[in-house]
Amino acid sequence: MFILVYNKCRQFGLLTILRGCDYMFQEALDKISYGLYIVTSRDSEKLNGQIVDALMQTAAIPPAVSISINKNNLTHELIMKSKVFGVTVLSEETPMIFIGRFGFKSGRDIDKFEGINYEIGKTGTPLVLEYAVSVFEAEVVDYVDSFTHTIFVGKIVDTKVVSDKRPMTYLYYREVVKGKSPKNAPTYKGK
Amino acid sequence: MFILVYNKCRQFGLLTILRGCDYMFQEALDKISYGLYIVTSRDSEKLNGQIVDALMQTAAIPPAVSISINKNNLTHELIMKSKVFGVTVLSEETPMIFIGRFGFKSGRDIDKFEGINYEIGKTGTPLVLEYAVSVFEAEVVDYVDSFTHTIFVGKIVDTKVVSDKRPMTYLYYREVVKGKSPKNAPTYKGK
Repeated sequence: MFILVYNKCRQFGLLTILRGCDYMFQEALDKISYGLYIVTSRDSEKLNGQIVDALMQTAAIPPAVSISINKNNLTHELIMKSKVFGVTVLSEETPMIFIGRFGFKSGRDIDKFEGINYEIGKTGTPLVLEYAVSVFEAEVVDYVDSFTHTIFVGKIVDTKVVSDKRPMTYLYYREVVKGKSPKNAPTYKGK
Repeated sequence: MFILVYNKCRQFGLLTILRGCDYMFQEALDKISYGLYIVTSRDSEKLNGQIVDALMQTAAIPPAVSISINKNNLTHELIMKSKVFGVTVLSEETPMIFIGRFGFKSGRDIDKFEGINYEIGKTGTPLVLEYAVSVFEAEVVDYVDSFTHTIFVGKIVDTKVVSDKRPMTYLYYREVVKGKSPKNAPTYKGK
């Protein structure tokens, strides 16, 4: 039997009761458009990187970008220490297995850079060149709390256009590549 | 005669000399993907809204979104005062003239809400329903400086899915609608 309850979300329904307003809100928030990126950083010899969709340019003069990173992630720890990060804009051709390496595994367990094509940028951060449309690197000028995540504001230090491929969008990733959000993503929707 | 100078951007070329590294960096940053949104706010009787591309979800539990707003804009002033903002995710069908009303004019000169379909949300902010795929409203929990812009972090208070149309992306806007960035956008590239 379904039991309908009028809850604090002002909505009826079983899913809302089980998972709360947060779940209900997600349907409208899923209409936001994203690309798909690898964000990298380093702490002395330890290099790491992770998949990010929450990235945007937040100033033009000087150019600055902002990213949202889960506080539990190793990349968060490295950016907090080094105050620099790198970004790779991934192309539509990026295969699931490559995204999985950076998105669904932790750099605490594996070396994500083993055997892949990357270079060390001006800031010392690694820049992943495989499946890259462009890469850029930034120095963190400030950051702000967003609950489970930190938003880092980075002033662009250097950039490079790597190919003329089409950038991967999150919509393309879900519809064509058939990918999902990892658990630590700001857009995570459960299983 | 062209004079080639090796400048601080480590690049040769006249455009780089005339416009600086910032201009050069923009090509790589233009590979970032965006949607197209109206961000609204109010201060007592004054309602305003503006076109934004720099918007992303920055936490899932609780749901939070962040936006980058130019400090010179009226919407910035209203959000700073009221500490609330509303968002409309625009559909691909949104015509240039409607985008122009919110993107290329100032609410200091015109009433952008005259004659359009909107409602007042829980927070008191207006939510534009015309050409909307979804709307949501947020309370500002924090903000951080990004040079010419402020990044506001908003905890989601309410959401609504308005239609099942496809969300407008910035790429679609440029390629199909043939639109440009207004001068106060974080992605502005000059004329």
